[in-house]
Amino acid sequence: MDLDLLHDLAQPNTTKIVLCSLDGLGGLPRPATGKSELETARLPNLHALAARSACGLLRHVGPGITPGSGPGHLGLFGYDPLRHPVGRGVLEALGIDFHLKPGDVAARGNFCTVDGEGRITDRRAGRIATDLCIKLCEKLQRITVDGAEIVVEPVKEHRFVLVLRGEGLSGRLSETDPQALGVPPLGVRALEPAAERAATAANQFVERARPLLRDAGPANMVLLRGFDRQPDIPLFPVTFRLRAAAVAAYPMYRGLARLVGMDVLDTGPTFAEEIATIRRHWRDYDYFFLHYKDTDKAGEDGDFDSKVAALEGFDERLPDVLALGPDALGVSGDHSTPSILAAHGWQPVPALISSAYCGADHVSRFTERDCAAGALGLLPAQDLMPLLMANALRLAKYGA
Amino acid sequence: MDLDLLHDLAQPNTTKIVLCSLDGLGGLPRPATGKSELETARLPNLHALAARSACGLLRHVGPGITPGSGPGHLGLFGYDPLRHPVGRGVLEALGIDFHLKPGDVAARGNFCTVDGEGRITDRRAGRIATDLCIKLCEKLQRITVDGAEIVVEPVKEHRFVLVLRGEGLSGRLSETDPQALGVPPLGVRALEPAAERAATAANQFVERARPLLRDAGPANMVLLRGFDRQPDIPLFPVTFRLRAAAVAAYPMYRGLARLVGMDVLDTGPTFAEEIATIRRHWRDYDYFFLHYKDTDKAGEDGDFDSKVAALEGFDERLPDVLALGPDALGVSGDHSTPSILAAHGWQPVPALISSAYCGADHVSRFTERDCAAGALGLLPAQDLMPLLMANALRLAKYGA
Repeated sequence: MDLDLLHDLAQPNTTKIVLCSLDGLGGLPRPATGKSELETARLPNLHALAARSACGLLRHVGPGITPGSGPGHLGLFGYDPLRHPVGRGVLEALGIDFHLKPGDVAARGNFCTVDGEGRITDRRAGRIATDLCIKLCEKLQRITVDGAEIVVEPVKEHRFVLVLRGEGLSGRLSETDPQALGVPPLGVRALEPAAERAATAANQFVERARPLLRDAGPANMVLLRGFDRQPDIPLFPVTFRLRAAAVAAYPMYRGLARLVGMDVLDTGPTFAEEIATIRRHWRDYDYFFLHYKDTDKAGEDGDFDSKVAALEGFDERLPDVLALGPDALGVSGDHSTPSILAAHGWQPVPALISSAYCGADHVSRFTERDCAAGALGLLPAQDLMPLLMANALRLAKYGA
Repeated sequence: MDLDLLHDLAQPNTTKIVLCSLDGLGGLPRPATGKSELETARLPNLHALAARSACGLLRHVGPGITPGSGPGHLGLFGYDPLRHPVGRGVLEALGIDFHLKPGDVAARGNFCTVDGEGRITDRRAGRIATDLCIKLCEKLQRITVDGAEIVVEPVKEHRFVLVLRGEGLSGRLSETDPQALGVPPLGVRALEPAAERAATAANQFVERARPLLRDAGPANMVLLRGFDRQPDIPLFPVTFRLRAAAVAAYPMYRGLARLVGMDVLDTGPTFAEEIATIRRHWRDYDYFFLHYKDTDKAGEDGDFDSKVAALEGFDERLPDVLALGPDALGVSGDHSTPSILAAHGWQPVPALISSAYCGADHVSRFTERDCAAGALGLLPAQDLMPLLMANALRLAKYGA
């Protein structure tokens, strides 16, 4: 749906919407049993909820396309991920909870090792300790360049984030990492005329980093990749006329929520604490994005049994979510992470919508196979948000 | 589907298509029983037809979007309602069976009350009697303005329709209703340069109405809203190469059919008379749009039992429709009107297609829940028309 149209139809109400995102929710049958993680787990609460909900499968990007966490969540938030790409530099910044400002250009940085002639001998500087990374980033933070403010933030081991901040900077810049050893880092090139100023600033940063790092042992040079400008995305609270809050223990998901303009609430790291956070703020917001990470971690590890346990852990807490009394509740995920793949997958993700007006279907188990026959059908992830809005009686009629 | 492509593929045949639109067909379970209106009603004929039909759910505008009657029917007629918006002024004119001509600009008019200084004291003139409205419209009908012919038609109580008729008039005009008391009506402004002439005509109409109404008691002034030009819509009989007739007892639906170029047949007000009208004209047309209103009325009243009765009333007459012997029969609706909502809803609407070539599915009951698992899936309403065309063997092969 066109976001402008949704904005035109969005109307105020006192109803509450909760979206539970189980990261990497969808799975695949384990060959030994022929049953997926959802089909193996004991999920009495989730199945009972599915029985009184409208069910379906969400596809986040396109058929056969495996979504990253960025596109996966943008889809859940109502955006077409193909129309709103989020680059790697920006994602890296979001992943450390860095507060990007509109117009910021971010890049992923690596400390690397160069020889006496400046040729790369290790693209990751022997994966230096994070402590050292932090110290070196403090050094680089002192660099000043023409036409942009410089921010350098450590990530982990040899990785850091570089942010160029200033008016009208373009992120259409080439990378300095030649992806090869025995050659020197490349210069940054502007990939469009408007990016000349940012290219100059980035090249000055690299040149001024060189002497500062000369005696820093294996981490004596930097490589920059994935330059990207923070995308101009229509703000979620404005588009849907919702006071929106995100509750997520992991920085990446807080960052994605912040990117679309949600308030990010301080929360403890467990799912129980996340739910308690929502309970405390129940009156202050119309929409809550509630993130559950454990399912994805287990799937990425290829640990089928852990993923089953993670699903059961969610199920045990589901009554607490229901007890909040949301008028419209969505349960789905940002992508599949089948344990037998041990990675994100392209498989569509089970989804349910529960409300007084959702209209049930014949689905009584919240599994990949059962949801495929649900009333919601196979739907683009970005359709979930207008459906939640409608179920919360927050969309006016189109046409007379 | 692209209408130009459908037009290219449309080919003549002697087959007959009937589309039954049960207004507001879809519903929701009543909490006490967990069964929807369709699941509660005794519908032996409809269920038997569903068992030998291809079934599915129609979505008329988009996920979560509640269609008005205009977009709902345009979808059933094969048009994308988002590409062919029908404005409020035009719908108001259609609703009184007014024969709009191409290029007509229509507005909703209200008689209102103004004080000695011309400030509005009642935006609806105390809801004057319809008889008085008719008399006052006769007065206003005498007004002449520059560059447009004026038509004024009474609707009901304080409401009337104003039509500006002339070459090249634009309907992009601001409203005169300030939506507030204690202030005078606003002037009409052109919202695009091409609308200047229409704005002048509308303002002259208002100024010339003032002295005519001076002594008309509470109805001593007019307010104009929802200006709109009759949309340029590809004509249905041309697009689909069908001689098309509409049979509808309610003026709004006759108007919508006329808008797309169907012939509107005179009919008695009952459904039995509507069917008899089709029988009389069976040889004269290839396509019949048959409208059944009772389902929507009951749903809008929030009267679950009445809606059940209305569905059963349709079911009793269904054999008469089948006895006509259509080669392709579609049964669906323009939107849901769940009794528990007492209003139009966004929920997709059950649909079936019956023909010698429809290919049945596992669905044997014509309900929201059962149709969700049908062979047609969840499909945009505008896809129904090409499917009916194909089932009537009226679409040629695409490509060699």
